[in-house]
Amino acid sequence: MNFYVMTLFPELIDAVAGSSILKRGIESGAISVEAVNYREYAKDKHHHVDDYPYGGGAGMLIQPGPVYDCFEELTRRIGKKPRVIYLTPKGRVFDQKAAEELSKEEDLIFLAGHYEGIDERVLDLIVTDRYSIGDYVLTGGELPAMVMIDAISRHVPGVLAAGSAEIETFHDGLLEYPQYTRPEEFMGLRVPEVLLSGHHLNVEKWQREMSIRETVKYRPDLLPGAALSEKERRFASELLKEAEESNEQ
Amino acid sequence: MNFYVMTLFPELIDAVAGSSILKRGIESGAISVEAVNYREYAKDKHHHVDDYPYGGGAGMLIQPGPVYDCFEELTRRIGKKPRVIYLTPKGRVFDQKAAEELSKEEDLIFLAGHYEGIDERVLDLIVTDRYSIGDYVLTGGELPAMVMIDAISRHVPGVLAAGSAEIETFHDGLLEYPQYTRPEEFMGLRVPEVLLSGHHLNVEKWQREMSIRETVKYRPDLLPGAALSEKERRFASELLKEAEESNEQ
Repeated sequence: MNFYVMTLFPELIDAVAGSSILKRGIESGAISVEAVNYREYAKDKHHHVDDYPYGGGAGMLIQPGPVYDCFEELTRRIGKKPRVIYLTPKGRVFDQKAAEELSKEEDLIFLAGHYEGIDERVLDLIVTDRYSIGDYVLTGGELPAMVMIDAISRHVPGVLAAGSAEIETFHDGLLEYPQYTRPEEFMGLRVPEVLLSGHHLNVEKWQREMSIRETVKYRPDLLPGAALSEKERRFASELLKEAEESNEQ
Repeated sequence: MNFYVMTLFPELIDAVAGSSILKRGIESGAISVEAVNYREYAKDKHHHVDDYPYGGGAGMLIQPGPVYDCFEELTRRIGKKPRVIYLTPKGRVFDQKAAEELSKEEDLIFLAGHYEGIDERVLDLIVTDRYSIGDYVLTGGELPAMVMIDAISRHVPGVLAAGSAEIETFHDGLLEYPQYTRPEEFMGLRVPEVLLSGHHLNVEKWQREMSIRETVKYRPDLLPGAALSEKERRFASELLKEAEESNEQ
């Protein structure tokens, strides 16, 4: 799968792509990440791509021309017009389901804005999807693009070691159980005995119970969407009730 | 404000901190970002910090010792124990309000995990806050830490140019209106006439109306929390109804 990021700060994209996070996927050839700088498509000799917004307001806005020309050349070079994702707080909120869905594309272009944003007309002309990674304001679209590329890549065959996606957070819509490794005792705290027992059925039971407990404790909003048995749902309801009662005291 | 990131991949933190995104704040002295590598606190000669999880399961887990020792030395050096934020899907969902709240701290430590996570005991011992930047799975805590540092920094005095935080997305809980800059006509698309009129009151009226329209269109979930007048709320309800009716056809 090929990712392209249209940006004013290609060095940031290159630095993240060159770091450990995406390295394995890139080295195995499962994914590629390329940054293209739309400043190179500025028409004036000082390579300005920003100008004042019509109607006033603080800050500068990115002009439509350089973004459009950059897009045209990029799509001519790759021989097709992939989906174009604009990173904006106005977008659909990105989640694990969207990551899985987008991982089925062969190519994806991300458009990262800066300053106060990008002229709306070029967004209307080239953007197919608008995504937000969360309800907070960031300086530019580069970090969100890399967050999305990381999350999407993990669904591309060959990026993750076999098996590791299976036991991750959000399996069955529950949070992961707490995990422990060597040493058995650390600062007086021991690994839960059941994990040392070698009794697989009990381990699995404990892990499932802890997943439900963690979800109740940290993210009760996930419970309605979780895949729970009738008995587990009653257990979760009781835990929720206990938590509410102890909060009231 | 001083940010510290405990990580196995300090080069990624340094690359982002050295890029344009945080540069202005760092150069002005308003913020600092320092990466500390807990691999340096590994006890064995191969600098391993990971081991198999008790109870089985795919993947490796980070051991408690190196993380704890790294934290002890860092806090000894800076002479206090600031809040420690662990990046995890189990955390409270990070949002603009949390960014503002956290920006009041003088120091913040971020703890970035990798592989399948970190031994729960050291989290219990040192972590004060658990945050998630969204409901998706990422390879490590480094990108989320940088996302949070970006969003938090924007509330630290001296990081943003004067005035620019005011007109941003989420003002009054609404999305920003569309923005336009030169040229007046691009690919046959003209800037809306009202923005060229110089009539400030009409411009403001248009911007406010468009903010409401954009919010209805892209993020209707934000409407209940938005600061709208009685009249504006009726307008938003009508737009919502229209949108639902056209969806049904």
